[in-house]
Amino acid sequence: MQKLVAEGLGTALLLISVVGSGIMGEDLAGGNIAIALLANAIATGCMLYVIISVLGPISGAHFNPAVTLAFWLRGEITTRPALAYVSVQIAGGVLGVWATHAMFDLPILQSSATLHRTGLAQWWSEGIATFGLLFVIFGGLRARPDAVPTLVALYITGAYWFTSSTSFANPAVTIARGFSDTFAGIYPGHVAAFVCVQVLAVFAAHPILRRLFDLKP
Amino acid sequence: MQKLVAEGLGTALLLISVVGSGIMGEDLAGGNIAIALLANAIATGCMLYVIISVLGPISGAHFNPAVTLAFWLRGEITTRPALAYVSVQIAGGVLGVWATHAMFDLPILQSSATLHRTGLAQWWSEGIATFGLLFVIFGGLRARPDAVPTLVALYITGAYWFTSSTSFANPAVTIARGFSDTFAGIYPGHVAAFVCVQVLAVFAAHPILRRLFDLKP
Amino acid sequence: MQKLVAEGLGTALLLISVVGSGIMGEDLAGGNIAIALLANAIATGCMLYVIISVLGPISGAHFNPAVTLAFWLRGEITTRPALAYVSVQIAGGVLGVWATHAMFDLPILQSSATLHRTGLAQWWSEGIATFGLLFVIFGGLRARPDAVPTLVALYITGAYWFTSSTSFANPAVTIARGFSDTFAGIYPGHVAAFVCVQVLAVFAAHPILRRLFDLKP
Amino acid sequence: MQKLVAEGLGTALLLISVVGSGIMGEDLAGGNIAIALLANAIATGCMLYVIISVLGPISGAHFNPAVTLAFWLRGEITTRPALAYVSVQIAGGVLGVWATHAMFDLPILQSSATLHRTGLAQWWSEGIATFGLLFVIFGGLRARPDAVPTLVALYITGAYWFTSSTSFANPAVTIARGFSDTFAGIYPGHVAAFVCVQVLAVFAAHPILRRLFDLKP
Repeated sequence: MQKLVAEGLGTALLLISVVGSGIMGEDLAGGNIAIALLANAIATGCMLYVIISVLGPISGAHFNPAVTLAFWLRGEITTRPALAYVSVQIAGGVLGVWATHAMFDLPILQSSATLHRTGLAQWWSEGIATFGLLFVIFGGLRARPDAVPTLVALYITGAYWFTSSTSFANPAVTIARGFSDTFAGIYPGHVAAFVCVQVLAVFAAHPILRRLFDLKP
Repeated sequence: MQKLVAEGLGTALLLISVVGSGIMGEDLAGGNIAIALLANAIATGCMLYVIISVLGPISGAHFNPAVTLAFWLRGEITTRPALAYVSVQIAGGVLGVWATHAMFDLPILQSSATLHRTGLAQWWSEGIATFGLLFVIFGGLRARPDAVPTLVALYITGAYWFTSSTSFANPAVTIARGFSDTFAGIYPGHVAAFVCVQVLAVFAAHPILRRLFDLKP
Repeated sequence: MQKLVAEGLGTALLLISVVGSGIMGEDLAGGNIAIALLANAIATGCMLYVIISVLGPISGAHFNPAVTLAFWLRGEITTRPALAYVSVQIAGGVLGVWATHAMFDLPILQSSATLHRTGLAQWWSEGIATFGLLFVIFGGLRARPDAVPTLVALYITGAYWFTSSTSFANPAVTIARGFSDTFAGIYPGHVAAFVCVQVLAVFAAHPILRRLFDLKP
Repeated sequence: MQKLVAEGLGTALLLISVVGSGIMGEDLAGGNIAIALLANAIATGCMLYVIISVLGPISGAHFNPAVTLAFWLRGEITTRPALAYVSVQIAGGVLGVWATHAMFDLPILQSSATLHRTGLAQWWSEGIATFGLLFVIFGGLRARPDAVPTLVALYITGAYWFTSSTSFANPAVTIARGFSDTFAGIYPGHVAAFVCVQVLAVFAAHPILRRLFDLKP
């Protein structure tokens, strides 16, 4: 139970950082989107470090169905708790988006009209972004477990910039961002394809990372 | 006595970083408020890391009446020293603002005319910001005590962006910022409501965090 | 074999961060090149921390023929594996550039037309940048081996700004950037001179650093 | 001897980071000085972390006559080596400035025409900046010796923004910056007053910090 609260609360806080800093950045940047994205990337990285450090000892700090799936493939979480994790991640993410809208005095219920997050290049970008995230997590757990919060935070901060999709790499985050017609939004009709690519990337990464990092089968 | 000096000096340095970087940012950014806020967020985060690391072993590095109140609720500080802490935090904060005005060749005594820091959305934002700060401190003390300076610094750096109020989350800081008619200012008539929300958030966070982090009653 | 995969994958990820963040930065910055370079520097630093932390225990995390040459000069790697390292670094770097072009929906095969990365001042800059990188690596290995990922990441993030060439300091990176007509590109005709200076800097740094850090001959 | 090389080389690298990133920032920012200062602050912080981490075990990593004076007042360095430290710090700083000019294809010998770094407010700012630097160093050595490179780097990164003088806080840096007519320059006629204030701040900080941190007399 405490684990599910941690996963839900952590994912909510993650979405607050993603969506809130996007709104603030776009509001203040006066059309200079680069500065908005810089704020977005830094704020998200800060929050990732915080929630992974603080909640890691409680729930493992997945906050991401793709990560839960990867742990399930490795046999480190069984099916029932994995499904429960995914459910609270999605619910927490959506609640986080709504809490953010309230902070910025925006309508709570929204649906994104951001239409450019689709197409082959974006999907390839999400594939690389998700592969990279799993590379960082499982490689980090092997090489430096205590550095995992820093590793994930810095990886995502960078990946906002070096992937064309700004690196969603997380189905719960992708779904939740469909509910926000702000800087971080994604048109709901484009969510499914992103989630598919993210899931495929987990299956592609699994055997490669197992071999690279000498993980047990 | 040494503890009170540490709390006063630390809060003064905190306000120097908040107000000073705000003035510098606004001066140089030429109307691009996003860059001013970025500088503000980075400079505050840097200073928080410094003062919590250096003064933590002396006073516990509260620098914040809301944090002192939370420790008092948990029975880790008694009433009299708690009140002394709060007093020097407020005094140190105001002295820090005045020292900053002198650095930037501005009138020492000022009163803020910044009128947008009020209303339900801003108060909700302060509630979340303060809850998040306590989450970070008490979760961090449980999970990784040596990472608390980093955790608080990164949390606040991010929260400048992902909360609509830029995350005061500190009654001493709120009061002191009423004394500065610069980028970081808050109209004195709006200070009381911010402080109320911050105090309420402490009472709301107390039972939740105790349960989440298995803290002793 | 696992080592070569690590060197190739790491160098590919490094180039993704360098070239990808350059494209994104230039796209969004609307002519303000300083913000593009800031994003470029931050994203590269983030990735360097990640790949050195994660792959260091596997291959030593060179990702750079100049670094492999320096270890060879110190007798810590023999000739055959050193040549294999250099080969996969170059191949990985080029593949990373191509993967990035695909993410940003650009033609895969390109050749840079960026003409200003030449001349005595730029070469002097690359000499200092490469010397500094070796100073950081070998000094860091002596003083604080666990801090080497942070040291290299921060050094390069800073060196984007304090050298006039933005600190390539890496022959594999230099060659790969010749294949990209984007923000991070370098005209292929200017690659050889950069690589020469980088190699000369290794030979110049070798005896100085050995003496400064009391390394064994 | 090795110590003096370390002090000279470290101070040279420090000035390369300060002056080089200032030139690059101003060149690229197109009049938006805030972005130039952000680059300046980040690059300097990166370099400080690097040189203190790498050279600290060799020379103590002063790179600053004010710091050497403070150690001398505490009896931790005797007069003759202290004077040698100060000499190579100044010489290294000037050589660093000249090496930077060569990187950016500028005349090697310059003299700054930047006239605004003077007056009571700027001197008060330098006094606070220098006091804060000693607070960070001696407080950090007491609380967390291994965090001193991070503490100093973050303090200076923040202090670029929260002090009106951008925090020189270092007589060798001040003198060397007189030799550069670029973003980081200071009119040579204003150097002496800055150095005086910095030295006075050392004498003022000495008894306060000794009491606050329970240092031995």
